[in-house]
Amino acid sequence: MLALAGYPLGLRFLFVDPNDDSPAGEIAPLLATDYSAPEALDALARCDVVTYEFENVPVEAVRALEARVTVYPSVRALGVSQDRLLEKQCFRELGIPTAPFFDVGSLAELEAAVEATGFPAVLKTRRLGYDGKGQRVLKSSADVGPAFDELGGVPLLLEGFIAFERELSLLALRSATGETAFYPLAENHHEGGILRLSLSPAPNVDAELDATARRYGRALLDELGYVGVLALELFEARGVLYANELAPRVHNSGHHSIEGSRTSQFENHLRAVLGLPLGSTEPIGYSAMLNCIGSMPDEKTVLAMPDAHLHDYGKVPRAGRKLGHVTLRAPDRRTLAERLAALRPKIWDIG
Amino acid sequence: MLALAGYPLGLRFLFVDPNDDSPAGEIAPLLATDYSAPEALDALARCDVVTYEFENVPVEAVRALEARVTVYPSVRALGVSQDRLLEKQCFRELGIPTAPFFDVGSLAELEAAVEATGFPAVLKTRRLGYDGKGQRVLKSSADVGPAFDELGGVPLLLEGFIAFERELSLLALRSATGETAFYPLAENHHEGGILRLSLSPAPNVDAELDATARRYGRALLDELGYVGVLALELFEARGVLYANELAPRVHNSGHHSIEGSRTSQFENHLRAVLGLPLGSTEPIGYSAMLNCIGSMPDEKTVLAMPDAHLHDYGKVPRAGRKLGHVTLRAPDRRTLAERLAALRPKIWDIG
Repeated sequence: MLALAGYPLGLRFLFVDPNDDSPAGEIAPLLATDYSAPEALDALARCDVVTYEFENVPVEAVRALEARVTVYPSVRALGVSQDRLLEKQCFRELGIPTAPFFDVGSLAELEAAVEATGFPAVLKTRRLGYDGKGQRVLKSSADVGPAFDELGGVPLLLEGFIAFERELSLLALRSATGETAFYPLAENHHEGGILRLSLSPAPNVDAELDATARRYGRALLDELGYVGVLALELFEARGVLYANELAPRVHNSGHHSIEGSRTSQFENHLRAVLGLPLGSTEPIGYSAMLNCIGSMPDEKTVLAMPDAHLHDYGKVPRAGRKLGHVTLRAPDRRTLAERLAALRPKIWDIG
Repeated sequence: MLALAGYPLGLRFLFVDPNDDSPAGEIAPLLATDYSAPEALDALARCDVVTYEFENVPVEAVRALEARVTVYPSVRALGVSQDRLLEKQCFRELGIPTAPFFDVGSLAELEAAVEATGFPAVLKTRRLGYDGKGQRVLKSSADVGPAFDELGGVPLLLEGFIAFERELSLLALRSATGETAFYPLAENHHEGGILRLSLSPAPNVDAELDATARRYGRALLDELGYVGVLALELFEARGVLYANELAPRVHNSGHHSIEGSRTSQFENHLRAVLGLPLGSTEPIGYSAMLNCIGSMPDEKTVLAMPDAHLHDYGKVPRAGRKLGHVTLRAPDRRTLAERLAALRPKIWDIG
């Protein structure tokens, strides 16, 4: 999607992906090798600018590249996003509310942390978690030992549970020139830890909530010396926003922006890392983005829906894999709700 | 632009172009060989469906392919569009007004035709003309002999002159399933025979004018057994629409549809030739498409304009060559006019 957004700007791409069946290879040159492989670093160093859209690329590879070529977002942003403890500490230092959290290096530390949070609480690995992986919910003291045994051996974090009403996400962006912009908040719905549905602009967002989210986004852009699109996942509970995590990249909850915004997050990420003026983030009507997980819906059924837009990533189907998405657009919320009600069963009954 | 519209639908492409620097080669497999070369025909015959976006591909090559693979639009549409006499006769048979026209095979026939049309009149080659090439305006009897000498030796056509107020174009489309749709009329402005600016939806189009244009478009779709996007160029003179020519392909006056329509002409052409449901042709606000001819404008200047969208085709610059376009979008005509006034000098002063 980055390449598709960049071609009209006259850009050319080189992708590096350890998987040799990466869909990027169908539409752009692909070097199918490890991110840290010398030939990958050499090839990337010959580009004008390097970026990434996966938060688990090795910090060392990005640091090595930064010495040779312009790389955005910064290695600091990448490092913070890869470590849930650093991430939560960063939020705390910036005055952004979070769930209570505790560094857990031993069963004794976990037991002490649970004393503080009470149940339920969530035990998470500090590193390499996404889409709900590397997490255990602790409902009672009986869960503590087994969860530590399952996840232990690596640094952990215990988080208190927030009885949140919904998840929102903010896409903040800054160009290398310093210009900043924010997309309207999106409301996200997960199932089994995987994003299923995103509504943008999120309903029931008043000016204060919006301003608070933007203030948090701006604080993070500043703190991290950030260039590009930054996604901030937030929980809303009784009018308070709690930061859950950040992603230093274009984000699934911003995929609606291809049709649902004046400028897509992909084009704006490219504009940002190239130091070009940012495009308008104003919405075009109301959008719903539905992920296609495990299998793709019938193409004709989707395309027959008014203002439905299919995005088939060309990936090999596999259970739980995001294979594509559909964006529905409508002139008002009511029409969007009607179209969504009609489309949902066509996409998810077969998933 | 077809490939960029098709990738999200999960499509893969093979392009054939005699020029080995075709920009399509940057983003898709390109066979740089003659349209009629056996290896080109063999490779195309292995595709699921074949289409073209250049009206001067050889009819023989398309006919040979039709025997081996699904090809849209039909060879009949291609043949008619390549011959200005057949084209005008087709319009006449369908009751679509045209300028008076006469088949010209000799100087004597030309002189007789000029008697009927009077001056000014336009002498055109029957075949291989586009962007104003292969045409001579006859202003007086002194121009007749020299124009015949310059263009003669090939079959010609003399057309009476219509003092038209403006040029409009209609994009009509039909899916292989029979479903039809029409984009709103666009208003086109040329300079030196080359399209410079297209406004969509065209201003000052009443329901009757619109219905008349659609009736003509539908008659052509039916007559030509058409599948895909068909562009019909029309002159408006005192409320009457005269057909000028048709193009059996996606059309420059429809480029605005990438941002300015619910579904772009490129995606809809692909949906049509694949027998998929057509997407909405409803406009998104008001759009102006400006061609970049001979040179590209400064990228930062364009991208700093609100809701301006740059399309750099990645072509080698050459005088008179269409290198890209910019689409401006606005919520109302007045804002569009203001933005257009600001952008025009940035694009065309340097052209």
